[in-house]
Amino acid sequence: MGKGEETRQTVLVKALRTASTVGLRGLTIGGLAEQTSMSKSGLFAHFKSKEQLQWALVEYASEWFVDMVLRPALREPRGEPRLRALFDRWLLWDGGSVWALPGGCVFISAAAELDDEPDGPLRDRFVRNQRDWLDTLATVFRSGMTEGHFDQGCDPAQFAYDLYGVTLAFHHANRLLRDPLAEQHARVAFERLVEVARPLSPA
Amino acid sequence: MGKGEETRQTVLVKALRTASTVGLRGLTIGGLAEQTSMSKSGLFAHFKSKEQLQWALVEYASEWFVDMVLRPALREPRGEPRLRALFDRWLLWDGGSVWALPGGCVFISAAAELDDEPDGPLRDRFVRNQRDWLDTLATVFRSGMTEGHFDQGCDPAQFAYDLYGVTLAFHHANRLLRDPLAEQHARVAFERLVEVARPLSPA
Repeated sequence: MGKGEETRQTVLVKALRTASTVGLRGLTIGGLAEQTSMSKSGLFAHFKSKEQLQWALVEYASEWFVDMVLRPALREPRGEPRLRALFDRWLLWDGGSVWALPGGCVFISAAAELDDEPDGPLRDRFVRNQRDWLDTLATVFRSGMTEGHFDQGCDPAQFAYDLYGVTLAFHHANRLLRDPLAEQHARVAFERLVEVARPLSPA
Repeated sequence: MGKGEETRQTVLVKALRTASTVGLRGLTIGGLAEQTSMSKSGLFAHFKSKEQLQWALVEYASEWFVDMVLRPALREPRGEPRLRALFDRWLLWDGGSVWALPGGCVFISAAAELDDEPDGPLRDRFVRNQRDWLDTLATVFRSGMTEGHFDQGCDPAQFAYDLYGVTLAFHHANRLLRDPLAEQHARVAFERLVEVARPLSPA
């Protein structure tokens, strides 16, 4: 990694932590300059504008999410074991683990900001990120249908929607309400989703 | 309603519509003055500070939510019919009805902003609002247990968590992804929650 790339990474890590609490809109090159003890002009050399910084951040967060959540889960056997690994690591991503961001999932903050924005490169990029993730969830679930863990009549897109809802509710209960039962509720909800998806025993 | 109260209401309606898209943080007395063609000093006479404006807004949105979603649903018979009415109106609140806000549920925007804020009057007020709502959902569900619509072994707090997740996922799919299947997915998820809550038929 060259010096320039290294600096860029350092800045992006800081920016990601900040954005997880104040959102993409709250991120400024000036504020970031203070946090990294870099000059504003130095930062502008890396990210020509606030928009480019936000874009780079979504890219970086997506890569980090793949490294921390998706890739390790894909090492598990197809179907239910992989789905469980994915869900466990997704909760860690949002929860209190060492590599979790201080404000929890940065994508949830970004979603709340970008949902009412008009179309534009940043929104489009982010929507692609979210669709990819829902597709991944559906694909992993579908592998469980092929493996015989889940019923052939299940709808993978519905499962992805349902599971996304479970983690959104977890974020809400955990971060906003600081509900000590947040994780328990999330796990019960997950187990029920898996339970109702099981193949009907042959008549 | 006196003239002062009338003006206050007019301003709050505008502010609510704005906050539903840009959030509580995006709301400024200056911006609101432009939208309402009132002077900034006139607005300051009603809301001493941005913080008081935000507080008044949460109060006002809560009252509106009660009028639009909760109160009409409470006219339905206890238990499942009331729960269905609540869910239908909740989707309308977030969806495309005439009285829906341009950015959908203002509470979801506020939640994303306030979740990582330190404790303070606004955050506390908002958390109380959200806990009240979850309690209401649990109470309506519990009335269904009493009526025999739902199984005695169900956990009303878990149901409230699950249902909140369904509507958070709806907001995400509908607002951010503009997924034409958003409402269908929400309704399928709701029906399953109701289905798995039904009393086990006597052995």
